[in-house]
Amino acid sequence: MSGDPGFSNYQNEIYLHGLEDRHPPFTTDFTALEASARERLEPGPFWYVAGAAGSGATDRANRAAFDRYRLVPRMLTGATGRSLRTTVLGGELPAPVLLAPVGVQSIVHPDGELATARAASALGLPSVLSTASSHTLEEVAEAGGDGPRWFQLYWPNDDDVCASILGRARAAGYSTLVVTLDTWTLAWRPHDLDRAYLPFIRGIGTAIAFSDPAFRAGLAKSPEEDLISAVLRWVPMFTGTDKTWDRLPFLRAHWDGPILLKGIQHADDARRAVNAGMDGIVVSNHGGRQVDGAVAALDALPAIAEAVGDRTEVLFDSGVRTGADVLKALALGAKAVLLGRPYAYGLAHGGEDGVRHVLRGLLADLEITLGLTGHRSPAELSPDDLWRER
Amino acid sequence: MSGDPGFSNYQNEIYLHGLEDRHPPFTTDFTALEASARERLEPGPFWYVAGAAGSGATDRANRAAFDRYRLVPRMLTGATGRSLRTTVLGGELPAPVLLAPVGVQSIVHPDGELATARAASALGLPSVLSTASSHTLEEVAEAGGDGPRWFQLYWPNDDDVCASILGRARAAGYSTLVVTLDTWTLAWRPHDLDRAYLPFIRGIGTAIAFSDPAFRAGLAKSPEEDLISAVLRWVPMFTGTDKTWDRLPFLRAHWDGPILLKGIQHADDARRAVNAGMDGIVVSNHGGRQVDGAVAALDALPAIAEAVGDRTEVLFDSGVRTGADVLKALALGAKAVLLGRPYAYGLAHGGEDGVRHVLRGLLADLEITLGLTGHRSPAELSPDDLWRER
Amino acid sequence: MSGDPGFSNYQNEIYLHGLEDRHPPFTTDFTALEASARERLEPGPFWYVAGAAGSGATDRANRAAFDRYRLVPRMLTGATGRSLRTTVLGGELPAPVLLAPVGVQSIVHPDGELATARAASALGLPSVLSTASSHTLEEVAEAGGDGPRWFQLYWPNDDDVCASILGRARAAGYSTLVVTLDTWTLAWRPHDLDRAYLPFIRGIGTAIAFSDPAFRAGLAKSPEEDLISAVLRWVPMFTGTDKTWDRLPFLRAHWDGPILLKGIQHADDARRAVNAGMDGIVVSNHGGRQVDGAVAALDALPAIAEAVGDRTEVLFDSGVRTGADVLKALALGAKAVLLGRPYAYGLAHGGEDGVRHVLRGLLADLEITLGLTGHRSPAELSPDDLWRER
Amino acid sequence: MSGDPGFSNYQNEIYLHGLEDRHPPFTTDFTALEASARERLEPGPFWYVAGAAGSGATDRANRAAFDRYRLVPRMLTGATGRSLRTTVLGGELPAPVLLAPVGVQSIVHPDGELATARAASALGLPSVLSTASSHTLEEVAEAGGDGPRWFQLYWPNDDDVCASILGRARAAGYSTLVVTLDTWTLAWRPHDLDRAYLPFIRGIGTAIAFSDPAFRAGLAKSPEEDLISAVLRWVPMFTGTDKTWDRLPFLRAHWDGPILLKGIQHADDARRAVNAGMDGIVVSNHGGRQVDGAVAALDALPAIAEAVGDRTEVLFDSGVRTGADVLKALALGAKAVLLGRPYAYGLAHGGEDGVRHVLRGLLADLEITLGLTGHRSPAELSPDDLWRER
Repeated sequence: MSGDPGFSNYQNEIYLHGLEDRHPPFTTDFTALEASARERLEPGPFWYVAGAAGSGATDRANRAAFDRYRLVPRMLTGATGRSLRTTVLGGELPAPVLLAPVGVQSIVHPDGELATARAASALGLPSVLSTASSHTLEEVAEAGGDGPRWFQLYWPNDDDVCASILGRARAAGYSTLVVTLDTWTLAWRPHDLDRAYLPFIRGIGTAIAFSDPAFRAGLAKSPEEDLISAVLRWVPMFTGTDKTWDRLPFLRAHWDGPILLKGIQHADDARRAVNAGMDGIVVSNHGGRQVDGAVAALDALPAIAEAVGDRTEVLFDSGVRTGADVLKALALGAKAVLLGRPYAYGLAHGGEDGVRHVLRGLLADLEITLGLTGHRSPAELSPDDLWRER
Repeated sequence: MSGDPGFSNYQNEIYLHGLEDRHPPFTTDFTALEASARERLEPGPFWYVAGAAGSGATDRANRAAFDRYRLVPRMLTGATGRSLRTTVLGGELPAPVLLAPVGVQSIVHPDGELATARAASALGLPSVLSTASSHTLEEVAEAGGDGPRWFQLYWPNDDDVCASILGRARAAGYSTLVVTLDTWTLAWRPHDLDRAYLPFIRGIGTAIAFSDPAFRAGLAKSPEEDLISAVLRWVPMFTGTDKTWDRLPFLRAHWDGPILLKGIQHADDARRAVNAGMDGIVVSNHGGRQVDGAVAALDALPAIAEAVGDRTEVLFDSGVRTGADVLKALALGAKAVLLGRPYAYGLAHGGEDGVRHVLRGLLADLEITLGLTGHRSPAELSPDDLWRER
Repeated sequence: MSGDPGFSNYQNEIYLHGLEDRHPPFTTDFTALEASARERLEPGPFWYVAGAAGSGATDRANRAAFDRYRLVPRMLTGATGRSLRTTVLGGELPAPVLLAPVGVQSIVHPDGELATARAASALGLPSVLSTASSHTLEEVAEAGGDGPRWFQLYWPNDDDVCASILGRARAAGYSTLVVTLDTWTLAWRPHDLDRAYLPFIRGIGTAIAFSDPAFRAGLAKSPEEDLISAVLRWVPMFTGTDKTWDRLPFLRAHWDGPILLKGIQHADDARRAVNAGMDGIVVSNHGGRQVDGAVAALDALPAIAEAVGDRTEVLFDSGVRTGADVLKALALGAKAVLLGRPYAYGLAHGGEDGVRHVLRGLLADLEITLGLTGHRSPAELSPDDLWRER
Repeated sequence: MSGDPGFSNYQNEIYLHGLEDRHPPFTTDFTALEASARERLEPGPFWYVAGAAGSGATDRANRAAFDRYRLVPRMLTGATGRSLRTTVLGGELPAPVLLAPVGVQSIVHPDGELATARAASALGLPSVLSTASSHTLEEVAEAGGDGPRWFQLYWPNDDDVCASILGRARAAGYSTLVVTLDTWTLAWRPHDLDRAYLPFIRGIGTAIAFSDPAFRAGLAKSPEEDLISAVLRWVPMFTGTDKTWDRLPFLRAHWDGPILLKGIQHADDARRAVNAGMDGIVVSNHGGRQVDGAVAALDALPAIAEAVGDRTEVLFDSGVRTGADVLKALALGAKAVLLGRPYAYGLAHGGEDGVRHVLRGLLADLEITLGLTGHRSPAELSPDDLWRER
């Protein structure tokens, strides 16, 4: 129980009032939360969230990498007056944590991205809205109120549709663009294939219908025909055509805020992002969902952080589950991390309330662990705070 | 879901139509496929396929080696226009994948090698027919139609029988000879011994009866006497006499196509194969089925590839289960890989249809993962694409 | 069975008379003991003892570190005439083993710290009484009789209360002060949070009520109000305010015996402790209960021991379960170790008798293993006695 | 199935006739054999054989060490004409395998050491009789017939008893003495302690009664009094007094054949054995039964083999389960290995027949695997045949 005035007050609140009655996700442990989600959800949605590419090797590698790096706590540093406040892209965040873009959230809870935006906004954390949202970006923007709004782009092959999406996002107040590079075609995902479960394509449809008049004109067929129409139009628009570095000016031309490239896993690609004038990168392997057998994102991070130094903003995701995980990523060079599956499970359990519980738990854990390692600010962390299993 | 015109279309097909109704092997995951085969087959056949030598240590090591090497995906490389096409031994293959020789396939499905040849042929992949086939090489050749035909030799001690087998294979249109060196005597295999299950000897009998007039003259006894006759004649012919490097000219004299040596695990043996004028080698530990406690084939590959450079064709098998596995073997120096147990399980589930499903799944996974790592061709892969767990 | 006259006689005693009838903890194996405690205790108390911070990673790392270091036994050294006697802080102990401070022991057995003190005293081992004891320090001192008395301090923010506690401890005959640095705020512990189980705060209350007249004056409310009063007063007193190195003279001014700092995990902090004139340090990560993802205590020990040499006394805890574990910690530079969960499980099974059984078992194991590695005294051990898994 | 004329014929025999009807231990797999023994035996005897010291860490380390070393098979070496024949201490053995001393074998089968001696003798393998045999050394010698006889000494503190034992062993035709150094006091073994199961002391009694007239004179009390008498006399005689290097001349004075020291785990101790004129050493950690947390015997072997070179005979035990294990120990410098638990489980299943089955299986596996790695003789093996996991 902590007397600190920040996020760790959630610890006091839980001890005083208990979790069980108030929160459907009545656990503060990720493993238990995932197990509970498995019981609560149908196999299709659960495995869409929990599953990974191929044999799941990258997902396991992500976790194993966190285990190889160990925090070395320091004593008597006077870490009471600590704060998680962090500057990202020139703006201040209450904590070095964002909500990763997770598509089609309505498959786990009807409120979907609306609930997520509300929970994130209440805590002042940016929620990165996926192109494949199950609610329109305008609805989600409204739900998020005054909270910081970031938008994730699956870069379509149709430039008009792309420009339309970006224009709508700017108009709706999204400040920052996160361009996902690692999913220009969907991975081989046995859990989804075995069930022929593909909510992604419906998500794309919901989200971009307003940006695609050619499609909207063709609606009002039977639901089955509509689905086939969507597949025929959107699959080739969103998959199967990888982009190249020389296309980045197109995005800059249609977006006047910061742009980050998500999915960087090699130092040379990070350098190219800097040279291309990108405002930031997200070191990520998409939570192990795209390339099976890929390097753990955390193992890729140190060389990338060293390669780019302060020349661009380095964010991180893939495998973050606990406060200690966040600290390890920061120590290895990330400015902030994106959280994915944990809040999706929170959403599955209790909508907005569930997301809030998961976020408050992570932030409390993070604030406490930051202090217990002897630090007053995320900015203090460096590789010297880590011990590496040889 | 991919819009690429190649093998990855199988992904679209599955999402649109589902797996469950169409394919008895209703899974795209190797672990699930093996578990399903275990339920479907009698213990004898299942463990003959799934089992390994001794304690199974080599089989486990094969898999662990794949886990230690990790792919590092590259972004924005324009990998859409990619192709799996590969040149092996001067000829073009649609993908760097062959079907490894698997003996006595009728123990898992009555169509056995006929079904396998049909499925491989339809995809243009070479299927390497085992000497211990449960159908005659002529029947399998006919079943395979126009597809590429390779023949695997268990090198008998009787030169006349050997010459006869090779002559029949040439006459039946087999182009390439794969000489298995690592199985001149059968390993100690507890799963088969505990059941006294030895289909291999019957397979040898079926396959070479036409090449062994001395034996055929003695048939028409009771089945039990026939089996004992076969054992007495063929066991000393196929086992118990290891060959030496100076015998290779005999094979060259009786085979006018390319010859590859299978079972190479040491760089010095690879160099000797080059010096002996062999057209290629297969780095392999026979899927862990021969020497228990042996080096993982993937761990042996880098030094071998470095030792021989471009002076001979390097193929690889042992432990390949996913598209990422194929890419790792290619990155470490293999030109193509041979797939074994996965298609045998496909055969067990659905004959030709089952083999085709497994092959199409692997090729789709491979094509997608090749692209998602940022490559347009298997030829681009090199050790620089890998991260090695220290 | 050993003929040695020391602690290993317990081995003879067990073989001759059997464990089952005499000791409720009828096992000499830690894993079985923990499993039995899990059956015997309510989930709240069991997981309070067995649980760890966050995902439990540090707890697992503690054990894995012991597995990486291996003892190399020496032969024919005449180790019969061996003794576990050890000098710590200038005083002689019968063995290099102390009882770690464990709070609120009444949650596992009503006799709690009284039983522990009696068992330790009978063996001549120091028991380090926790500030969060469920019996007053005076009661525990009386229970311990002539045994060595150490006192552990959770350093409160109220200097008057702190001085009062230290004065009471000195008056009650506690000789040595162990200041826990790593728990100035309570960790994020999912097992306890999920049950809103926080016995710690009640323990603090029981133990310091006599040192806190301001609180005692407010008692005689309803139990529920009392709890809230305690929380409101003691939470901010014991948590949320990290101390700094310049506050150590305060402790020296109020304690005229040896002072050790517990929770040191970095060589620089160990050097600062030396420079601050501390009499000793305890290398510890609080049994994995504070910082999730922290370095294993045993992995931190060698660099710390090298950094401080003989300039201060180095003790160790976190993960010690067997005699071999004790020897490994000694070989890496510790003068003695503190045992925690094992004796708490002994207490859970049989009060004083259970603690004594666990202690006698550990000491017998230790004395036997010391001899079997070829040593006559703990002082002989050095890093040369270890083999390190590469 | 092998056509070789040696031990591998057992493979043919099994395939032709099956195991199930003929051998109660109807398996050729160690893991299955151990599981079957667990079902067949009472917990006391089973765990006495299967159990290890302390937490079992050394036992697990023994196996893990074998997994880190990997055989690299060589091809086309003409290994058909191979033989397992080996020269040990100037005499020829049919294979580099001995039967390790296992005490009180009657706890798993009434025939005990008599059955073991008969099975070993029939194969020409030396069986090392334990001092703690449940049959007298004279009876076992007679049972073994013409087979090679080795004798293991637990070195008692009473020189007269020691001289008497050695004299009886010589008179009964035992040629070689193996002095166990690592068990001068019994380890802390939870499995046995928890059951107060100590057959060892009865074994010592049975075996040495003829060498201890002082005890025999006191017999004819009640069984319970006899046991207590035995404990009182033999425990201090066989435990609790470690010897020193300067006592070795006593053994030499009472034994005119070769002497080996068993339990060597450090290169310095191996050098001392050479300097003391010992004929050989056995690198061993007693199968993990003495020092918990000790270095794996296989990990200790390379440095020891390098230290002594050809100056003394290096044997090995601890963890050998398969033919590949034998080859790895030989490649790292052992001349031969001792097999323990596997044959004890064979004995438990079928007495002499069960031991023979286990031995024939191991020898067949060894002979096959020797050939398949490309060798004609155990003498060819060297560290170059191994790949080491980094």
